[in-house]
Amino acid sequence: MRTTVGIVGAGPAGLLLARLLHNAGIDSVVLESRDRAHVEQRQRAGILEQGTVDVLRAAGAGERMDRAGLRHDGIELRFDRRRHRVDFPALTGGRSVTVYAQTEVCKDLIALQLEDGGPLLFEAEALAVEGAETDHPRVRFRHEGVEDVLECDYVVGCDGFWGIARQAIPQELTRVFERTYPFGWLGILADVPPSHDELVYARHDRGFALLSMRSPSVSRLYLQVPEGTDAQAWADEEIWDELERRFETDDDWKLERGAITQKSVTPMRSYVHEPMRHGRLFLAGDAAHIVPPTGAKGLNLAVGDVVTFARALAHRRETGSTALLDAYSATCLRRVWQAERFSYDMTTLLHRAPDATSFEDRLQLARLERIASSRAAETDLAEAYTGFPFG
Amino acid sequence: MRTTVGIVGAGPAGLLLARLLHNAGIDSVVLESRDRAHVEQRQRAGILEQGTVDVLRAAGAGERMDRAGLRHDGIELRFDRRRHRVDFPALTGGRSVTVYAQTEVCKDLIALQLEDGGPLLFEAEALAVEGAETDHPRVRFRHEGVEDVLECDYVVGCDGFWGIARQAIPQELTRVFERTYPFGWLGILADVPPSHDELVYARHDRGFALLSMRSPSVSRLYLQVPEGTDAQAWADEEIWDELERRFETDDDWKLERGAITQKSVTPMRSYVHEPMRHGRLFLAGDAAHIVPPTGAKGLNLAVGDVVTFARALAHRRETGSTALLDAYSATCLRRVWQAERFSYDMTTLLHRAPDATSFEDRLQLARLERIASSRAAETDLAEAYTGFPFG
Repeated sequence: MRTTVGIVGAGPAGLLLARLLHNAGIDSVVLESRDRAHVEQRQRAGILEQGTVDVLRAAGAGERMDRAGLRHDGIELRFDRRRHRVDFPALTGGRSVTVYAQTEVCKDLIALQLEDGGPLLFEAEALAVEGAETDHPRVRFRHEGVEDVLECDYVVGCDGFWGIARQAIPQELTRVFERTYPFGWLGILADVPPSHDELVYARHDRGFALLSMRSPSVSRLYLQVPEGTDAQAWADEEIWDELERRFETDDDWKLERGAITQKSVTPMRSYVHEPMRHGRLFLAGDAAHIVPPTGAKGLNLAVGDVVTFARALAHRRETGSTALLDAYSATCLRRVWQAERFSYDMTTLLHRAPDATSFEDRLQLARLERIASSRAAETDLAEAYTGFPFG
Repeated sequence: MRTTVGIVGAGPAGLLLARLLHNAGIDSVVLESRDRAHVEQRQRAGILEQGTVDVLRAAGAGERMDRAGLRHDGIELRFDRRRHRVDFPALTGGRSVTVYAQTEVCKDLIALQLEDGGPLLFEAEALAVEGAETDHPRVRFRHEGVEDVLECDYVVGCDGFWGIARQAIPQELTRVFERTYPFGWLGILADVPPSHDELVYARHDRGFALLSMRSPSVSRLYLQVPEGTDAQAWADEEIWDELERRFETDDDWKLERGAITQKSVTPMRSYVHEPMRHGRLFLAGDAAHIVPPTGAKGLNLAVGDVVTFARALAHRRETGSTALLDAYSATCLRRVWQAERFSYDMTTLLHRAPDATSFEDRLQLARLERIASSRAAETDLAEAYTGFPFG
């Protein structure tokens, strides 16, 4: 099998890249180890930056998003029983975000790809990327029990944190930056209209909580829990009780309860792999970097990476110059590190570390107070939340 | 001995308070344990916020400051061999800071107080504040070998971190918030014109460095050193060599050397004592809170405290209402915690912790990058540096 761009992984990064390349007249093959149903059901992020929305729309993948996505013009910060709204358009010159689940983005992109795109192979497990330093890198993979090789001009590893693409970069050329957090998120999906029409980020002495939504009738809520918590150990009513406590306010705001249809715990990690390119192998999305979910940056970073790659490859074809491809890693990492910084700051702003001192508690409250009282500090947050420019 | 306001300590907080009270027609007595020469020579801060300058001027203590103080319209951040200037007036609607050493402020205030103020007793060691819960608090002290009692309507403890006033607040009513840092500042005074006309804050892999000045012919420079460092263990040439390394740039900027006339190491600490008032005892300045020096906030916080107290007492005399006196602690603490937050952030932004991970190094660079590229982030810093509003 042979293609111009071999794409490892059919998450949002790989699927969007296939679409961008298709639109630019560049052929690709996508290899995905799981089956279609799995890919279309795994719950992940749900906040699209303005730039991500623009890219999906321009790629022709925005039709259902424009119908079903919920435009959000702000978030609420909740602390000390107080409520403070951050007004995105007012602070950023009109920018907003869109609530539209990653699973839906994937469904839309899969449908498009199967309709008129290049090959998209499910249950095709990539085993290794080889020859990244040569002009003809290849991906060894196993599909329907048979080992095969995908010959490429370029390989893009979009296979996530646990993927194999990254391993093709020699360790002696690699630097890894990492931070783990002693807590995770217990996330639930519930059949109940969201109790607030925008996301609510709550800082509470008992820990962080987040109110989010998937649609006007489905709520998505999170509780900070200790690292290693078993989601099933929490009874549904316990979860609602704890959410209620952490969202407490001085006014009559009320959390509506509903049937919980899914429960899971997400670990929290910051991770950056440098460089993001080795020869003709390029890493994109979680394959190269992980952010804790607090800043809603993971999916948006992946989009930035593949946009940068697609532009660089188009530039190469138009001009013959490899300058943009050569700059890929540095270009992406500038944005990645800003997102890492923001995600770390949002996480430490709102979560209670198990060994937090009372000094650190007061610092958190002083930071939140600052955001609530300084337009500059609030703008800094709003700019970062609605998204850093691509490339 | 009897007075309206007994002031413990003749640092800038106590001296300024005596002046503000004098101007309001309220009598006070200042007790200072050290002699005059000592008070007039101890090297401390040197950056006055706009609000501090305004207060000193309005208090009639601005004459020499206006002649000798250096108005600074910005600072330089130096990182990754790059230089980024933060333009205060452009970002804050015209605010700036003034370089004028704390020792000079003290000299000016002492001269005024001795000229026409109430008693200012040097070598008068306060031993205890008593009766804070009563209408007649008193300060026991020892002066010229003799124990005496100062009977007051109010006592203000301006006796610094090591002072005795704080001890009069019962421990069960007290909360202490504290953070120490595993490094300090090796500071030098040198007879050489400053190598840059504004302060330079340098973040370097080898540690933080700060270029500051006392006058057009005297430089004040600092190096981050490990906790417990002995200043005398550093030879003069070693200090200059290390400063040169940490201030390195890609252009032809050059550090001028000169004769070092003083060397000392300052430890770094964040500390807040809550509440700042107990009955008729009020704490002001370092007696209640310490910040690491990175944000240049210590002296300015002390000024805010005594302005708040003087206003509250004047309000009491004009209206009979104790509302402002009762609110003293809460009013001061709002500003204190913003300064604690800022000082902590500036410290962690620029210093290298001995156990810093490579992830944290990159975070620092990403933060500096953010300040250098986002007007909002830069404004947030400029607002905090030039000063939070009083009370």
